[in-house]
Amino acid sequence: MNDSIEAIEPSPGRNWKLVLAYDGCDFCGWQVQPDQPTIQGELSDAIERITGERIMPQGSGRTDAGVHALGQVASFQINAPIPPPNLMRALNRTLPEAIRVLEAQPVPPGFHARHSAVGKTYEYRIYRGEICPPTLARYVYALNWPLDLDPMRKAARHVLGEHDFTSFAASDPDSSTRETGLEPNCIRTVHESIWTSEADLWTYRVTGNGFLHHMVRNFVGTFLDVGRGSLPADAIPAILAARSRTVAGPTAPARGLFLVRVKYPESF
Amino acid sequence: MNDSIEAIEPSPGRNWKLVLAYDGCDFCGWQVQPDQPTIQGELSDAIERITGERIMPQGSGRTDAGVHALGQVASFQINAPIPPPNLMRALNRTLPEAIRVLEAQPVPPGFHARHSAVGKTYEYRIYRGEICPPTLARYVYALNWPLDLDPMRKAARHVLGEHDFTSFAASDPDSSTRETGLEPNCIRTVHESIWTSEADLWTYRVTGNGFLHHMVRNFVGTFLDVGRGSLPADAIPAILAARSRTVAGPTAPARGLFLVRVKYPESF
Repeated sequence: MNDSIEAIEPSPGRNWKLVLAYDGCDFCGWQVQPDQPTIQGELSDAIERITGERIMPQGSGRTDAGVHALGQVASFQINAPIPPPNLMRALNRTLPEAIRVLEAQPVPPGFHARHSAVGKTYEYRIYRGEICPPTLARYVYALNWPLDLDPMRKAARHVLGEHDFTSFAASDPDSSTRETGLEPNCIRTVHESIWTSEADLWTYRVTGNGFLHHMVRNFVGTFLDVGRGSLPADAIPAILAARSRTVAGPTAPARGLFLVRVKYPESF
Repeated sequence: MNDSIEAIEPSPGRNWKLVLAYDGCDFCGWQVQPDQPTIQGELSDAIERITGERIMPQGSGRTDAGVHALGQVASFQINAPIPPPNLMRALNRTLPEAIRVLEAQPVPPGFHARHSAVGKTYEYRIYRGEICPPTLARYVYALNWPLDLDPMRKAARHVLGEHDFTSFAASDPDSSTRETGLEPNCIRTVHESIWTSEADLWTYRVTGNGFLHHMVRNFVGTFLDVGRGSLPADAIPAILAARSRTVAGPTAPARGLFLVRVKYPESF
């Protein structure tokens, strides 16, 4: 390396990818906000404490207050020449225990946690027992009223494939662009949409190429309407066709939702 | 019933027993304290909101800040003629989700959650994986350093039976009387003292006729010294014989500890 060239053209920094798990209960969501605890803010602070560099890590998408992650992805550039295992250990020593770095790796300069993402998987967990154990309460929607799982499964299959998901999108202005780098429209493709149950835990799992703001929670709220019999499973196609938030069910609470995994092209 | 007699001799109230589970993280322990969230305080407030009666429920023993319960027991007397399932439902609607009532039943007048208790079981949970999942972090002591479980099992067997447990008692003045209604001495009997492991979770389970303040956490801190090789397992008898807090290991953190069950005579 030629020092004089380095001095004239400063290094653009090494590009990093992190995989993160977090308990979202005590944070005001992913996105940094003044005077509020956020995942992005905690991560930025931790990176600065370790490297002295003030940067803002980019997430694969924002998660709302109370939403958890098993595999959120963040990317950022720093100049510090730190080996990956050391950065991971230092971050886990510095971050609150509610946020853990599961993987840290250098990636090619073109990688961006949000723009490079080609798919995501979410899970929504519902506790069906009569009394929700306090150690589970932060991580499930406790719902003890009668629900019929079969029509919920049928309803879930109706959202598979490519659709305009306007009816399931939050009505906030940036809803169509906030979760993905796709064109600002509400067309997305859902590859997996299934309910499973094991003892008192019912789990909805959904994978797609991108999700609109509140889309998974609105799916779940609507499927719950189906499960309690207030909406037929076969009403889903008409709800999709209506392209109106008012025709779908309510937004299920944040605490049951987990961002499980973000998918990238194999080149990353 | 004769109303006039009722008016002259007011009912002493019905005696109740509750079984409670709680996540202790966000409370300053069991015992009510001014301007602090406590389990006893939340329960007293909930009972007052439901019945209009201001009483102070008695626990089987105090749990410290951060200690959890799967089966804490409380007793109290109220006059409200409320059916048990209704009281349980009303309490679970009123209490924070971190506290759940698992059972509510009327008991004979002689029952007292602390004085009637004849035994207790605690569990202490240690997470041994490299990175503790955020959804577990509140409920385990995450400890990734090398530990050898076999000597810890051997050490645990040394506390079985009747001993003077002064060496494992907190040095606070009321330590010997605060957890039980026994005579103010430090002699207790331990019936079960075992370590088990399943994947990354190591669990210490201990049952006895009563426990001194910090006794289980001091057991665990001492067994961890054994597991890391800084204390031989066979040192436990000498530590017991010394009757001095200074010779045993450190107090393990509160968050790994669960009060599992309180035992009462069959007559209750």
